[in-house]
Amino acid sequence: MKWVAFLLIAVATAAGVFVLTAPASGQGEAVPIFGIKIPRGYRDWKLVSVAHEEGNLHSLGAVLGNDVAIKAYRDAKLPFPDGAIIAALHYSHIPSEENNKVFGDPQSFVPGPPTNVQFMVKDSKKYATTSGWGYAHFDKDGKPGTEAALKTCAPCHAKASRDSVFTQYAP
Amino acid sequence: MKWVAFLLIAVATAAGVFVLTAPASGQGEAVPIFGIKIPRGYRDWKLVSVAHEEGNLHSLGAVLGNDVAIKAYRDAKLPFPDGAIIAALHYSHIPSEENNKVFGDPQSFVPGPPTNVQFMVKDSKKYATTSGWGYAHFDKDGKPGTEAALKTCAPCHAKASRDSVFTQYAP
Repeated sequence: MKWVAFLLIAVATAAGVFVLTAPASGQGEAVPIFGIKIPRGYRDWKLVSVAHEEGNLHSLGAVLGNDVAIKAYRDAKLPFPDGAIIAALHYSHIPSEENNKVFGDPQSFVPGPPTNVQFMVKDSKKYATTSGWGYAHFDKDGKPGTEAALKTCAPCHAKASRDSVFTQYAP
Repeated sequence: MKWVAFLLIAVATAAGVFVLTAPASGQGEAVPIFGIKIPRGYRDWKLVSVAHEEGNLHSLGAVLGNDVAIKAYRDAKLPFPDGAIIAALHYSHIPSEENNKVFGDPQSFVPGPPTNVQFMVKDSKKYATTSGWGYAHFDKDGKPGTEAALKTCAPCHAKASRDSVFTQYAP
C-alpha cells in the first residue's frame, strides 16, 4: 500500500507541475472582444524567440509559447492547433550602464521596466472570424487593452505569412 | 494491476520529462579549462532575460536558466547556489523584412542565424579559482571555444556586481 501511495503522490506531483504551468482559466480581468485573461504560469513557458522594435516603440521583448505552441513551432506545423498560446513580453529597450562600463563601449542594451504583455490564443471555432486567433493585451499593471486597440490586432496579424504569426522560432 | 501499470507509466513519463530537461552529463565536445559540455535540454529552460549587443557584436540574445538558476533569480538569492547554470543563446541582430513591410517602417529586428551559445556553471569547489563559476562557449556548430578565449571569461565577469553575473531577471 505504501508503494501505491508513493505512486499516487508522484503522479499528483507530476500533474501539479502541469496544472501550474497550464493557462487554465487565467487570472485578472479579461480583455474585451476576445475574453482572454492572463494565462497562469505563462512566465514559465519555453522560449520561441526574442524581438527588438524601434520606430515609436523602443522595445525589447521575449516571445514564449505554451507546450502546444512550442510543439507546433518545433514540428514546423501550420496552422497552429487549437490550444496554442503565444505570449509576447515587452520591456523598454534601455542601455545597460553597468555592462557598458565594463565593456568600455556603449554597446549593451537590456530590458528596462516591463511595458506590456500580449497573447495570441488559438481556438478555431471561438475565434473563427479572426482567422482562429484571439488576441489580448495587458499593460504593465495587468490592465486589459481597450476594445478599439484590440480591434487592430487581427487585421495586422492577418498580413503575417505563417498563420497570422509574425514571430519565427529561434533555434 | 492495470491501474498500477497505468500509474507506473504515468510516473515513468513524468520522470522522462525531467530527464530530458536536466543538464545531465552534457553532449558533444567539452570546452578546455572548465571541461563543460553543452547541457542537455538547455533550449527548454525558462527565460531569465533578453539582450541586445551592438559595438562589434550586432547580437540579439536570450538568457535562459536551469531550475536552480531560475529559483535563485526569483528568490533574489546571491551568491547563486551550486548547480545553477545560465545559458546565453546568441543570434545575429537583423532587420525583419516581413515585419517592416507590414509596419511600413524599418523598425523591426529579429534573431538571424545563431552565432554561439555560452554557459556559466556554478560549482564553488570545482571552479574555486574563478569565483565558483565555470565558463563555456560553443560556436553555431557546437565547436568549443579556445583556451585563450575561455581565459578571458572570468576576469571580465568578475567585474559584474551580482556574483559575476551581468544579466538581471526580467519580470
